Amino acid sequence: METAQQPLQSVVWAGDHLDLLDQRLLPEEIVYLALTTAEDVWEAIRHLKVRGAPAIGIAAAFGVYLGVREVSGDAEQVQAEINRQADYLATSRPTAVNLFWALDRMKAKADALLTGEGLRDGEVLKEAMLSEAIQIQAEDEETCRLIGEHALTLLHDGIGVLTHCNAGGLATAKYGTALAPLYLAQERGWNVKVFADETRPVLQGSRLTAFELQQAGIDVTLICDNMAAMVMSKGWVQAVIVGTDRVAANGDVANKIGTYGVAVLAKAHGIPFYVACPMSTIDLNTPTGAEIPIEERNEEEVTEGFGKRTAPRGVKVFNPAFDVTPNEYVTAIITEKGVVQAPYGENLRKLFG
Amino acid sequence: METAQQPLQSVVWAGDHLDLLDQRLLPEEIVYLALTTAEDVWEAIRHLKVRGAPAIGIAAAFGVYLGVREVSGDAEQVQAEINRQADYLATSRPTAVNLFWALDRMKAKADALLTGEGLRDGEVLKEAMLSEAIQIQAEDEETCRLIGEHALTLLHDGIGVLTHCNAGGLATAKYGTALAPLYLAQERGWNVKVFADETRPVLQGSRLTAFELQQAGIDVTLICDNMAAMVMSKGWVQAVIVGTDRVAANGDVANKIGTYGVAVLAKAHGIPFYVACPMSTIDLNTPTGAEIPIEERNEEEVTEGFGKRTAPRGVKVFNPAFDVTPNEYVTAIITEKGVVQAPYGENLRKLFG
Repeated sequence: METAQQPLQSVVWAGDHLDLLDQRLLPEEIVYLALTTAEDVWEAIRHLKVRGAPAIGIAAAFGVYLGVREVSGDAEQVQAEINRQADYLATSRPTAVNLFWALDRMKAKADALLTGEGLRDGEVLKEAMLSEAIQIQAEDEETCRLIGEHALTLLHDGIGVLTHCNAGGLATAKYGTALAPLYLAQERGWNVKVFADETRPVLQGSRLTAFELQQAGIDVTLICDNMAAMVMSKGWVQAVIVGTDRVAANGDVANKIGTYGVAVLAKAHGIPFYVACPMSTIDLNTPTGAEIPIEERNEEEVTEGFGKRTAPRGVKVFNPAFDVTPNEYVTAIITEKGVVQAPYGENLRKLFG
Repeated sequence: METAQQPLQSVVWAGDHLDLLDQRLLPEEIVYLALTTAEDVWEAIRHLKVRGAPAIGIAAAFGVYLGVREVSGDAEQVQAEINRQADYLATSRPTAVNLFWALDRMKAKADALLTGEGLRDGEVLKEAMLSEAIQIQAEDEETCRLIGEHALTLLHDGIGVLTHCNAGGLATAKYGTALAPLYLAQERGWNVKVFADETRPVLQGSRLTAFELQQAGIDVTLICDNMAAMVMSKGWVQAVIVGTDRVAANGDVANKIGTYGVAVLAKAHGIPFYVACPMSTIDLNTPTGAEIPIEERNEEEVTEGFGKRTAPRGVKVFNPAFDVTPNEYVTAIITEKGVVQAPYGENLRKLFG
């Protein structure tokens, strides 16, 4: 019998510095980097040592504090440096929306304290920055925990679950989204059996999902993506749970390439297909999945996945990063505010209302 | 515009020796090995330089001739050496049924000539061995061509086709099975657009199918297995064609892992799912797919498939080599004797006459 373990955390505030799990080295090495400056954080984000939108935002928020903690002066002087450090950290990954969101929140907090509350003490402002970063992390953990709690109502002890890509604790403060109910199930002493699609071409399922579940002592079996149909036909899974990059207003779901195929297979086998995400991922301004742009990535991810050429030179390659699962394949969308089912157009609006 | 090219042949009789394409070096290098002795052929089969059941059988048949051509003596003396060489070649891959079939045929031919026709001249017997090997190869090519002709009646100019794994010319004398209609379509000047699943874990689609179609100047696009659903949803393919390792009497089809998932996806998208194979692959003694044993292969194919470890050590892995596609997903089975549709139990028996 496995002993219950805590899920591995990717960003840990260690009292006077940030311990950051270097995700580039996974699954072969578990190395925490001690980050003591904003430059360290910028470097870690830029070089993908930290990945996952929430985890990046959290790291950046702590980066602002690390960037100003040595500054002396009054609150206005500290605020100027907060803004400077936040703008600097924003350049680490120019397309990461959650990064900007976290940095803007740090700036807004400072502004609220100075403009709104008339704060003058620079030292207090610096401490407030640390508190805000800790708060961002705590809120993310709570969001994930609530997603997990709501998802648990759809599962049961002894269940088999299949997941695709990585929507796990490594990408968030703790628990993750799709994997959150699995961690909570384990805390409750349930037995769950997880099948992790390796998720070609970049193998997030193999490198990250299988890794973090194994670390936590959860029963996980790694499969190639094309084995999911056979696993379903064997009756080994009773639910599919995945994360998402964006949910449209009609409930269409954009997620890692391969998700749509898993959804079709789940439906054919009578297995519910659940999508777990924070409310912030639901975009009511995108009417349907057809309006979600699908990035195509470079061919080498497919033709020379891990340093060795495995396809003929010059061959044409189609390598979309995401696909869209139409809402009719989605059994439920699970957020921190509860579980939503079809009709999604109506029920997603209600969730926000 | 591409000029029509001949499909690459894996086994070529060069008049006084065998030119054999070293398939281990594909797709990076196209190297033909000049085999002049039975030992060369044994070595090539043992070390997987030649793969594909028909291609192995053909190579072995030529190996028998290479093993006896220097022998002097009467027909009885040559026959003794034929039997010795055939038994020796049979040890190169002890599980390859087609290898034994080809070697038995060579021995039976010699026996028929001596016992049946009273042949006494050793030189004539040796030439007859060469003729028989050439005949085995020609028959395989004709079988594949006929499969291709029958399959073509189900396709049309301009069609998009998706295939999984490799059932191509490299595994046979020429044309292959699933790929045969694509080569014939090209000979006819049709435009076809092929999507090749890379076929994890061993990447036969990437290394072999994409390679041989590209060599022949056929329009081929390589995708990861989990992209097939998206390609279908885009309307880019109007037919799926795959090979098979064994067809049961009820039309259930065992083939490379992932085939079943492709069949389910094809059905969900209203795309016909065709299985191409020689009659010899249909096993009326196997009632259903449930009686076909599914080999599980070693975990390292999944966890270190690209020569680099990509999964956590000690993680559980499920790695079946094949899956079974139930007959209700099979639109038609295409053999050298024609196209068979449901009800398969009845119609496959009829095919055998």
